[in-house]
Amino acid sequence: MNPTLFRLPGCSQIALELADGVLHLTLNRPAQRNAMTQTMLGEIDAALDAVAPHETVRAIVLRGAGGHFCAGGDIRDMQAAQDAPVAGAADPLFALNRAFGRLVARVDAAPQVVIACLEGAVMGGGLGLACVSDIAIADRAARFAMPETGLGLPPAQIAPFVVARIGLAQARRLVLTGAALDGAEAARLGLVHFVTDEPEAMAERLREQLTRVRRCAPRANRVSKDLLLKVGAMERDALLDQAARSFAEAVRGDEGREGARAFLERRLPSWAAAD
Amino acid sequence: MNPTLFRLPGCSQIALELADGVLHLTLNRPAQRNAMTQTMLGEIDAALDAVAPHETVRAIVLRGAGGHFCAGGDIRDMQAAQDAPVAGAADPLFALNRAFGRLVARVDAAPQVVIACLEGAVMGGGLGLACVSDIAIADRAARFAMPETGLGLPPAQIAPFVVARIGLAQARRLVLTGAALDGAEAARLGLVHFVTDEPEAMAERLREQLTRVRRCAPRANRVSKDLLLKVGAMERDALLDQAARSFAEAVRGDEGREGARAFLERRLPSWAAAD
Amino acid sequence: MNPTLFRLPGCSQIALELADGVLHLTLNRPAQRNAMTQTMLGEIDAALDAVAPHETVRAIVLRGAGGHFCAGGDIRDMQAAQDAPVAGAADPLFALNRAFGRLVARVDAAPQVVIACLEGAVMGGGLGLACVSDIAIADRAARFAMPETGLGLPPAQIAPFVVARIGLAQARRLVLTGAALDGAEAARLGLVHFVTDEPEAMAERLREQLTRVRRCAPRANRVSKDLLLKVGAMERDALLDQAARSFAEAVRGDEGREGARAFLERRLPSWAAAD
Repeated sequence: MNPTLFRLPGCSQIALELADGVLHLTLNRPAQRNAMTQTMLGEIDAALDAVAPHETVRAIVLRGAGGHFCAGGDIRDMQAAQDAPVAGAADPLFALNRAFGRLVARVDAAPQVVIACLEGAVMGGGLGLACVSDIAIADRAARFAMPETGLGLPPAQIAPFVVARIGLAQARRLVLTGAALDGAEAARLGLVHFVTDEPEAMAERLREQLTRVRRCAPRANRVSKDLLLKVGAMERDALLDQAARSFAEAVRGDEGREGARAFLERRLPSWAAAD
Repeated sequence: MNPTLFRLPGCSQIALELADGVLHLTLNRPAQRNAMTQTMLGEIDAALDAVAPHETVRAIVLRGAGGHFCAGGDIRDMQAAQDAPVAGAADPLFALNRAFGRLVARVDAAPQVVIACLEGAVMGGGLGLACVSDIAIADRAARFAMPETGLGLPPAQIAPFVVARIGLAQARRLVLTGAALDGAEAARLGLVHFVTDEPEAMAERLREQLTRVRRCAPRANRVSKDLLLKVGAMERDALLDQAARSFAEAVRGDEGREGARAFLERRLPSWAAAD
Repeated sequence: MNPTLFRLPGCSQIALELADGVLHLTLNRPAQRNAMTQTMLGEIDAALDAVAPHETVRAIVLRGAGGHFCAGGDIRDMQAAQDAPVAGAADPLFALNRAFGRLVARVDAAPQVVIACLEGAVMGGGLGLACVSDIAIADRAARFAMPETGLGLPPAQIAPFVVARIGLAQARRLVLTGAALDGAEAARLGLVHFVTDEPEAMAERLREQLTRVRRCAPRANRVSKDLLLKVGAMERDALLDQAARSFAEAVRGDEGREGARAFLERRLPSWAAAD
């Protein structure tokens, strides 16, 4: 399927660009350090919808405009939600908060490889998003923290994703003290995979990782990511049964056959050609 | 609630001191390197009971008297339990062992922030206790080990807490070889958060961490810790629903309102005043 | 039970040697970098069967012949399975893949302490095997990778074991990019415990670890490993109940009594005598 055959949604708080099979998604409220609003959540959701079915879109690169990744939830947006008339049973604060958790879960499970480029503030919900990337590259001077409890609030929707990322032992200290980490400390805790020292080095690391992603077969990557995310959520033998069915299907499928041929012919497989 | 309005229990094997919203709980059998007995377990339990309902008590600092944290279970106490007449169906060895696991689980879930200051021997059950702290500070020369299998016994009650803390890969090596770690190695494995080189540096690190804890809202910290501990034990969507309810309640509660005001007025919130 | 009283199975693709209570199991297809076949899986299975009931066999050392640990599944073997007539309902590719997952799970749960000595290629299924060792020693120049998706296939049977070993955050990057790690990086991610710089250093580290294993009581080690592997798969209180029963039994058993006596008499326990 040709990536030019589908349309990206119109957006006001994020910027979208599709190039070489990569969706570049930039949080775009630089004056608010890209603090997230309900509008922004909806726009990210629509962008994920647009690319989800397209195997030609191999990766999604998440970034923030203006030197910060994301400062968390927008307090003014939250106050607006709080002041909204509670027509019917729904609590707007509950709904706003819960919607954010659904988005994080959705980014976690995106069929594409999600790469986060992390600079400046990576706070609260922004840290939650960073925790569900497949590849995270951090600027050494980036600042990771969950300041919620200092504001009298729990880091409600990101707690499970932070624990899944860095483990309970590190999560409990960070949440209960509001401590901040720089890029190197985030790498040491396994929150990010790479640390770079300047924008050009980050761009170079990103190019390298995208090259690697393109050498992996699109459908095999989708199937593999789905398997990895089911570990712990499914009984192990049932998961291994499902995995063996996926394996047999892949060997017989076009990717498996092309992969075996390319291996024997000592050449790159067709899906790596876009490089 | 004024912390001076409740009484701490009388104790013979631990020492208790309440100051500035912090309960200092010191294992106090220095001649036995603070090896744990049934009496000591009961005293720790009573101390946790005494402070549990009090939001003014923000943290519990666990330490050992005399240069060691805790050498594990007291062998003489165990032999006494073994020799006790088995009246009724209960097995005293089973009961003694199981009671220790209940205490570790209880410290894990204490509503306060639990900070462990770890020196000298941190062995067996002592290592189990260290594994459920929210913040662990280790002396570089401290010695962490699970020597149980060398004595012909399984590290029965601490196994799940050690795996939760450092992962299965590290736990299986340490348990099956009885290997010892120093403070720096314990930090590398994520068993502790900080390493210090002398008592004064440990005291300074503790003061710093207590200052951080006081900047976090008491109820928000309780709610957050509860959420973190439920990750993995509850289905994720159900946990996120509960988290969103806690969030909405916190925004509307006194802490959330004070947190928002303090943020806008660029001042410390009221709960940080005790500093 | 005398280890000389049982027979090791005859093998063509692995080599077996039993000495001093240690089964040395060497993957032995050096010309194929020890790539795994159905025959090899069957031979490993038979070797594990032979030693499983014998408490005198304290450890299993896994190695590869000829400078490589294991390059993964043998592609020719897979193609042969693919071409096999599908008599009855069974899919031979499904069966071959699933059989490998069963073997990895079985090595994970082997009652002996499993030590992996990792050199050269530690790829795909070979990396899966490394992930279920109790102690892993890697040559600094060893090369760890999951190249499956580059061949159009998912790393189907090893996914849960890799996630259990190094966590989801690291596993997703490695699987979705096919990235390779050397021994030092594998240690940093917790995939292995030790890194050595030359064969003699690896042999020395292995001797040291075997000495440590022998100081741990054979039955206590079996019981402890079983407990550790049940963490997360069983409800915690039920696991702690079972653990307390094992503890009480061990205290009263021959190992517990010998352990206590040796401790009081300041001597090595009987099971360490083989040293």
